Amino acid sequence: MSIPPIIVLVAPQMGENIGAAARAMGNFGLNDLRLVAPRDGWPNRTAQSVAAHALPIIESARVFENLENAIADCHYVYATSVRMRELNKPVITSRRLPVFTGKTAVIFGRENNGLSNEELALAHAILTIPVHPACPSINLAQSVLLVAYEWFQQQESPVLPEMALPAPMEELNGFFQQLESELDAVNFWKVSHKKEKMWQNLRVIFQRATPSSQEVQTLRGIIRALIEKRSIY
Amino acid sequence: MSIPPIIVLVAPQMGENIGAAARAMGNFGLNDLRLVAPRDGWPNRTAQSVAAHALPIIESARVFENLENAIADCHYVYATSVRMRELNKPVITSRRLPVFTGKTAVIFGRENNGLSNEELALAHAILTIPVHPACPSINLAQSVLLVAYEWFQQQESPVLPEMALPAPMEELNGFFQQLESELDAVNFWKVSHKKEKMWQNLRVIFQRATPSSQEVQTLRGIIRALIEKRSIY
Repeated sequence: MSIPPIIVLVAPQMGENIGAAARAMGNFGLNDLRLVAPRDGWPNRTAQSVAAHALPIIESARVFENLENAIADCHYVYATSVRMRELNKPVITSRRLPVFTGKTAVIFGRENNGLSNEELALAHAILTIPVHPACPSINLAQSVLLVAYEWFQQQESPVLPEMALPAPMEELNGFFQQLESELDAVNFWKVSHKKEKMWQNLRVIFQRATPSSQEVQTLRGIIRALIEKRSIY
Repeated sequence: MSIPPIIVLVAPQMGENIGAAARAMGNFGLNDLRLVAPRDGWPNRTAQSVAAHALPIIESARVFENLENAIADCHYVYATSVRMRELNKPVITSRRLPVFTGKTAVIFGRENNGLSNEELALAHAILTIPVHPACPSINLAQSVLLVAYEWFQQQESPVLPEMALPAPMEELNGFFQQLESELDAVNFWKVSHKKEKMWQNLRVIFQRATPSSQEVQTLRGIIRALIEKRSIY
């Protein structure tokens, strides 16, 4: 597990956005929130209520007068920006976050006009989120969410519940033999030289379903049920 | 470029969330929004104002009475879920989205309690967003954002699979109706209260196979062949 990044919001305007940013941090295991000169002062009741379960992040957030102080203890500093300016700094995308070692700050600018050139100048690199050119304006909390999400996904892969094992091939073949003989009995293939190809195509459907042992039994039960009352024998 | 997924919101409650979902779609090049029975009716002024530059997505959104109708023309259906239930369906993570070919719907549940088991049963697979266990509740529009983001980031170098497209859901349902009525006719379920669960388990097997239109015809032909000579009518 690399160290989660510190989220720094520069002069955020709306309490909703601060609360939603905290919530997004909580969703992905981040906890250090720093605010530079929030417009409406601090604490902010809207931020508290929007944060929901991430309230502890809001309560432990620290407020700074300027960006320089907010990042004084950080080893690495990334400034988020959608507009690419002539800064002669490395640019990384959210998609390819580096592994964070040491204290890493990710800075987000004001809702209306981002970070100033002076603020961008404090960063080691620019972090950008690739968006569709037709609709490039992305909300502050959404940007925080995407960075937090990318960091979290970079950690160990989560454990997912496993699907039931497919039935062993011999069980599947037992079903195939049953189906084949019942289809033979009603002359399903019509033209005998076409049978081989048709039968191959048909097996492929069921094999793709990777039925479990129990599901193979169900399929066999269906065949039995469907032919139960027929009178050809 | 693979085809962008269709976003389906089931019974969304708040206009803010619908608008924010549309905005998130716009940020990442998605445009087909479908709503199943939105709580506050449609159109919704809050949704329109929150959507901002993504207003055209709101304006062209279509409303459906139920989920089945909303996804009738889709070849693949993914249901988002955080709670992992016993469904015996494949589970994929947002991080490893498959390359979408054909019309693909991604379904999102209600803000308060997600998707019902019946709704989840309609999907080919479950799509889950790995979150931190301490704070697992993720906002509806944020979930849409992450799926849209992942799709967009995937576009750099898509690798297209060569399989035939699955049949649209309505064709698959035609097969299901045929199979169900033939199984009803021979009293396959034995105990009527068990039918619902048995039938759900059975559908899952065939849906997992993602049969093409032609393969659905083959399956229908098998049913017809098997019952051809029966004498119960």
